[in-house]
Formats: sequence, structure tokens, C-alpha cells
Amino acid sequence: MEKVLIANRGEIAVRIIRACQELGLRTVAVYSTADKDALHVKLADEAVCIGAASPAKSYLNMNNLLGAAQITGADAIHPGYGFLSENAEFAERCVKAGLTYIGARPETISLLGDKEKARETLKAVGVPVTPGSAGKITTVAEAQADAEKIGYPVMVKAVAGGGGKGMRLIQAPNQLDDLFTLAQNEAIQAFGSNEMYLEKFIERPRHIEVQVLGFKDGTGIAVGERDCSLQIRHQKVVEEAPSSIDPATRDKMLAVSKRAVEELHYLGAGTLEFLYAGPDQFYFMEMNTRIQVEHPITELTSGWDLVKAQLLIADGKVLDKPTAANGYAIECRINAQSAGQITGLHLPGGNGIRVDTALYQGYKVPPNYDSMIAKIISYAPTRQLAVAKMLVAINETVIAGINTNLDFLNHLLQTHHFQENQFDIEFIERELLPQAKD
Amino acid sequence: MEKVLIANRGEIAVRIIRACQELGLRTVAVYSTADKDALHVKLADEAVCIGAASPAKSYLNMNNLLGAAQITGADAIHPGYGFLSENAEFAERCVKAGLTYIGARPETISLLGDKEKARETLKAVGVPVTPGSAGKITTVAEAQADAEKIGYPVMVKAVAGGGGKGMRLIQAPNQLDDLFTLAQNEAIQAFGSNEMYLEKFIERPRHIEVQVLGFKDGTGIAVGERDCSLQIRHQKVVEEAPSSIDPATRDKMLAVSKRAVEELHYLGAGTLEFLYAGPDQFYFMEMNTRIQVEHPITELTSGWDLVKAQLLIADGKVLDKPTAANGYAIECRINAQSAGQITGLHLPGGNGIRVDTALYQGYKVPPNYDSMIAKIISYAPTRQLAVAKMLVAINETVIAGINTNLDFLNHLLQTHHFQENQFDIEFIERELLPQAKD
Repeated sequence: MEKVLIANRGEIAVRIIRACQELGLRTVAVYSTADKDALHVKLADEAVCIGAASPAKSYLNMNNLLGAAQITGADAIHPGYGFLSENAEFAERCVKAGLTYIGARPETISLLGDKEKARETLKAVGVPVTPGSAGKITTVAEAQADAEKIGYPVMVKAVAGGGGKGMRLIQAPNQLDDLFTLAQNEAIQAFGSNEMYLEKFIERPRHIEVQVLGFKDGTGIAVGERDCSLQIRHQKVVEEAPSSIDPATRDKMLAVSKRAVEELHYLGAGTLEFLYAGPDQFYFMEMNTRIQVEHPITELTSGWDLVKAQLLIADGKVLDKPTAANGYAIECRINAQSAGQITGLHLPGGNGIRVDTALYQGYKVPPNYDSMIAKIISYAPTRQLAVAKMLVAINETVIAGINTNLDFLNHLLQTHHFQENQFDIEFIERELLPQAKD
Repeated sequence: MEKVLIANRGEIAVRIIRACQELGLRTVAVYSTADKDALHVKLADEAVCIGAASPAKSYLNMNNLLGAAQITGADAIHPGYGFLSENAEFAERCVKAGLTYIGARPETISLLGDKEKARETLKAVGVPVTPGSAGKITTVAEAQADAEKIGYPVMVKAVAGGGGKGMRLIQAPNQLDDLFTLAQNEAIQAFGSNEMYLEKFIERPRHIEVQVLGFKDGTGIAVGERDCSLQIRHQKVVEEAPSSIDPATRDKMLAVSKRAVEELHYLGAGTLEFLYAGPDQFYFMEMNTRIQVEHPITELTSGWDLVKAQLLIADGKVLDKPTAANGYAIECRINAQSAGQITGLHLPGGNGIRVDTALYQGYKVPPNYDSMIAKIISYAPTRQLAVAKMLVAINETVIAGINTNLDFLNHLLQTHHFQENQFDIEFIERELLPQAKD
């Protein structure tokens, strides 16, 4: 592996470029016409325009991406997160083109990308899953039968789903007809598939996820877990590592995750997402076959460089185990709430602060892509110290010219619930955004 | 302690403000007329103009600083480094004004500020010192006698010295008359004192220094050592932690440093500077009674937050020992080589990169103060990984509008000597700056 094409944009493209450079690998950035002045374009050794602003015409266009790799002589592709990062066809086409795909094997992506198959597979290797449909369903009648068996409340989800789309909570039998149909229509629009499944709805759980690495020799490790319960409409806002769940359940969760990685011969970095409802009550939701947005908090608390690990695993290199790490890390996602030019920028820094971003003063945030524009991560010996550090960091951050969620984060971090680590995945919508309830 | 006045400017003022904010302490910035738009002024809760651009009229003006503390109701003063940070009179006046002085006790500053007394004192508690004059000398005749006894080459140094001023290397007897007089004249001009002393000149040593903390109960710890051998005209440029000296000597160096702290009842953060010439050959040079520029590399590799430790010690609080840390950290000092406005700024970030700076885009770097404008620190499991990370970070840094030493650092980091960790305190001047030899 000598030259890596990064099939992505924004902060994750910058993150991957830096990791490549540290390993002495050359880098190729790709960009849409909306991204010609983006930071990842400036930092890479080479850059290729792959199409118009619309994702379908550029970052999702496999032909253009593979063409860019061919033109530049790249011998590997890193998909980042989002876009084509969990697309089995893309992974397969990379492999067929003779490129090293930096991610899971195509067949693994395919298997785990089907949420229903993933649940069945993981259940078979001993990972606890939420009680739910035994198979895919497409009709209201099937949904009714399954819901009776599982017991209300239930969640209806799209088999091909993600990002909260094609998903509805059904509290009682009389809501089923309407909400199932609504979710299914959303699924058809978003994923082109009408296949759905039902799951028992777990009340006020924590979202706990386990970062794993799988190696070529079939071994795997559970690097550590993260608490990503703070969400707005299923989008994570603040993440922490480690979690505050009881240690015995945590150990079990890590153990079953490691077992799953090894049973699946999983290759590279991945994440098993669980709902946690109390001691011994944890349920597998899905496994993401890519690097996650919130990977930095695991890097800081484990000592692993997860993006370098991805590159080295894909290149068949042996990885040194990192020296032991510890402490507490918190990540805040800074989201743009409008597009426009950054007219003033001051990002925090200093002891225990990490910033992952592609922002620079003068940069024009385009309206075409994900709203997440920066990640501020604090790291300290304890949660209390990491929280204090994050508040100072958020307070001093200035991003002028666009609207952001900095004020909301500032408010959230100062709530009693956050300070006391007392929250669940519904906390923000229930307590802080009452208007979002309907 | 509730409100801390920071008697400094630049990145260290920002560093201290952040530490205060994390501890819930209110902050007062002071600034000269040249610094009205400085970052530390923007970040503090309050800010007071203390005089004209010239340091003597502002940052060195004790009356103005104490007046600012009184006006704002500050109950503590942090001196930072440089300026009044090792001025016993200032420390004493703070104490007499009823303020908590965040630093060593006035009598300790006074004792260790006298380099000759410091050597005698440290020698008496078992710290090895360079063979040298038994007392202060003021005449060429005294110098000649001492030099014969010690053996050439010898260094002549100002008793009140620092920063390389009033210091000359004398290789042979026939140079003594001229160079002693030259150094003495410099000492008179810089420090208002003609008191000098001689020391054996150690050829091609490493500069190894030990970070210490002394607590109110009389106990102390040696936090760790740093290699600060990479210097230009006695100004450090790149620092590393830990050092590469042999472990047995390292252990001895840390042990005698801890002993010195306890024997002296030293309070707060301090640094013992040594020359290291080989196994068991290390010689105390001086002890700095303040936070050092390069403290971040010790923070990253030890887990201690040294500025918070200073604040907590001064406030009589009990400190928790940090969880064990490890790894390797390197700091590069980014120096301005011209004054002027920062028209473009991109600082590195991401995994294992810490930046301490008071720069922002649009900021006008004034010509009146120290040239050090930013510190880039890389942190990784090993030296090799930290070096690779630093090179990537230096390469992506953009500071437009002024001249800096970024190109020089880039060159230095790529030299065989640096990569192989083969250098001494004369390396840069001998190998990379031949024109500086005369």
C-alpha cells in the first residue's frame, strides 16, 4: 500500500489524510465542485474533482471514485464514514479493481448491512438481541401478529435502515396501522425497500456501543465502550468513554463483542451498538462496519490510533498493542445550523483538548452535506474534570458567520442531568426539546 | 482563592486562564497598550490595561500589577514564565498585599535566583554540580586562578544571569582576559551586577531537566525529565519527554531532584536543569522557580496538569495523583521572525496533537515581546511515532503574514541526527547554523 484515495470529505477526510501521512503513505483527495476549497483538498498530496455538489453525482458515484483511483495510481481506498462506507457493492468493486479496500470484507458489509440478518447472525454467536420479528415483514397484518407476540411498545424499523429513517415507535395496537405504513413509506423513499421488522421497545435505555478491531489472523479485540445516549432524533450529539454502566455488564458486553468479531472473522474497525436498560439487560441493535464519528474518545482512553489501525490491518501489517491508557473523554459534535462563510474562527486548544475539524477562517460551509463541522474532545483523569474542561472549551469557541449548536451544547453540558450522568437516549428530546415531542 | 490575576501575556496567559476556568476560579487579564486585542484579554473574565508597550512600563511594573489586583478584587496572582515570574521582590510584595502568590516562596526564589548560592545549596543536599568557582568573582585575576584550578575549557557566567546573557566559553588561558571582561560588561548591562563565576565546560552534553512539584506538607515529587538539548543561542527550540539517557542515571537524577525539593521545602512547580555527559555524569546548572515553556510534554507523559497543580498547591488544596501515563511527547516552539498581522492561519489538530497559542487570524503580532508565538506538541506511544506526527503537523501549519521558523523546524526534524536522537546542546549551532559559530 503506497497511495490511498480518501473517498470522503470534511473532518474525517482530514483525519485519514493525517494518519496516512504519519505512516508515509501518499494521499489522494476527491472533491465535488462544492468542495474545491475544502481543507482535505489542500492537505492531500493530490486532489481530483469527481463531480457536482449533489452526493449522488460525486461522493456516491462509484464510477467516478474508481476512475479517480485509476487516474492517480492510488492502490487503496478509505471510505471514511457515511457515503459509501457501508456499501458492499463499492467494497467489492474496489477489490475487483485490484485496490485495497480499507474496511470490512464486502460479504461482511453485506451481511451486517441487512439489519435483520445481522441480528440473526449475532444472536447465533451468543450476542443478546432485542426480542423482535423472526424475519422480514412487509404487511400490516404481519406487523400486528409480531407486535402481539413481542408485546407493546414496539419499534418498527426498515431492514435497510439507518440514521433514524423508516423508524417509528408504536405504543399501542390502535397506532399500528398508521405508523407502520408511515415508516414503510419512508423506507421505500430513503432506501428503495419495503422490508421492515419489529423490535421490543426498551424504555429509557442508554446507547452503549463497543469499538472492535478484527485482525487478518481471525483474532479480534473489544477496544472499549462508549456511551452515546445523548441524541436528538437518533443523531448523536455528545459521546463519552468509558460508560457509567455497571462493570459486570460492561465486561459481558465487551466479551460478547470480541467473540462476535472472531466468529465473524471480522476485518478492521467496527462498532457493535447496544441498548442498555440495567444490569444484565443489554440488547444488540446493529453493527457498523466502518470508523465512527466518535472514534476519538476511544482513541484517547485506549491509546489505540483507530484510523492507523484500519490502514495497517488492510495493508496486512502487524500492529503493536498500545501502551495502556485510561482517563475519561467526552466529544461534542459541533453542527452548522446554516450554510455560509466562516468570518471568524477561534477553536479551543491546550491541555487535554483535541479538535477534529476541516474548518478554517474564510471557509464557506456548503449547504449540501452533513451538518457536523467540528468535533471538540476533552480528555482528563475523571468524568468531572473532563466535563469542566469541555465547558471551558465550548465557552471559548467562536464560529462566526454561520449558526451553530454551540449555545445548545453549552446549555446541555450545564444541566443537572448531564453533570450527574443521569440520562438515557430520550433525555434531550424529553427534557430539553419539548417541542420535538409531537 | 476565588479570583486570579494573570501577570503575563501570550500563550501562557491563555494556558493559565483555561486552568483557572476549569477550577471555577474567576480570572483577571492584564495587558499593555500593545496587547489590547490579545487573546488572553478576550478569554479572561476581566481585563485591566497596566501601561505602555515597553515591558518595564507594564508587565514588569509591580505597582501597576498590584494596583490592578486591588481594583479588581483579585486574591491571587499567577506570574507565568518570564517577566516577574522569578522576582523575589514581586512575590514578597504580593504576599504582603495579602494576595496568594502562585509560585515558590519569596525566600526560595531569592535563594535559587542567585545562581552561585543555588549551586552551593543544591550541592549541600547531595545534588552533583559542575566543578566551578567556590564563590562570586569580579576580577580577571580571580577568574584566572579559578580557571587554572578547574581546568580549561571553562564557562564564565553572570551570577544574576539567565537566557544566555553574560555568558562566554573560554577555551584557553589567552582568551580569558577579553572574554571575561566581555561577559562581565554584558552582565552589568543586563542585570546591573558585575558578579560572575566560572564553571567547568562540559563538552557536547545533553540538557536534561527534571520537573518537580513541592507540596505544603514538605513532601515533593520528581514528575519526570525532559531533554531540551536542541537550542539556538541557549534558547530551547525542540523539547522531548522522556529523555533517552541511560535509565540508571535518570533514576539518580530524579531521586536527587526529589530530595532537593524536600530539603528545600520547595513549594509549587519547579525545574532542576542538568547537563548530562554520559552514565553517572550529570551536573546541576540551575533551578527555575516557575512553570516552564515546555511543561506540556511532561503533562502529556505524566498525566499531571502542572498549571492546575500550581493553583491547587498555592490554594492549600490536596491534589489527587493522576492515573499513570506514558508515551512520548515532543514540543516545537514556533517563533515569529517578524512582527505583523496574521493574514492566514491554519494550526494542526487531531489525534495526539496539542497546540498552545494565543494566535488568531487577524491578530497583530506586536514587536515588543518574546518571539515564541505557538507551541505544537505531538504525543504518541513511541518517539518514532511522535516524530512522524510532528512532521505532519509542522508541514500542515500555515501562519501567513509574518515570518516564522516553521521551515527551519521542518528541516531540523528531518535531519538524520534528530531522527536518530543523536544530538547535544551544541548540535544546531555546530551542524545546522555554521554561520552562527563566530
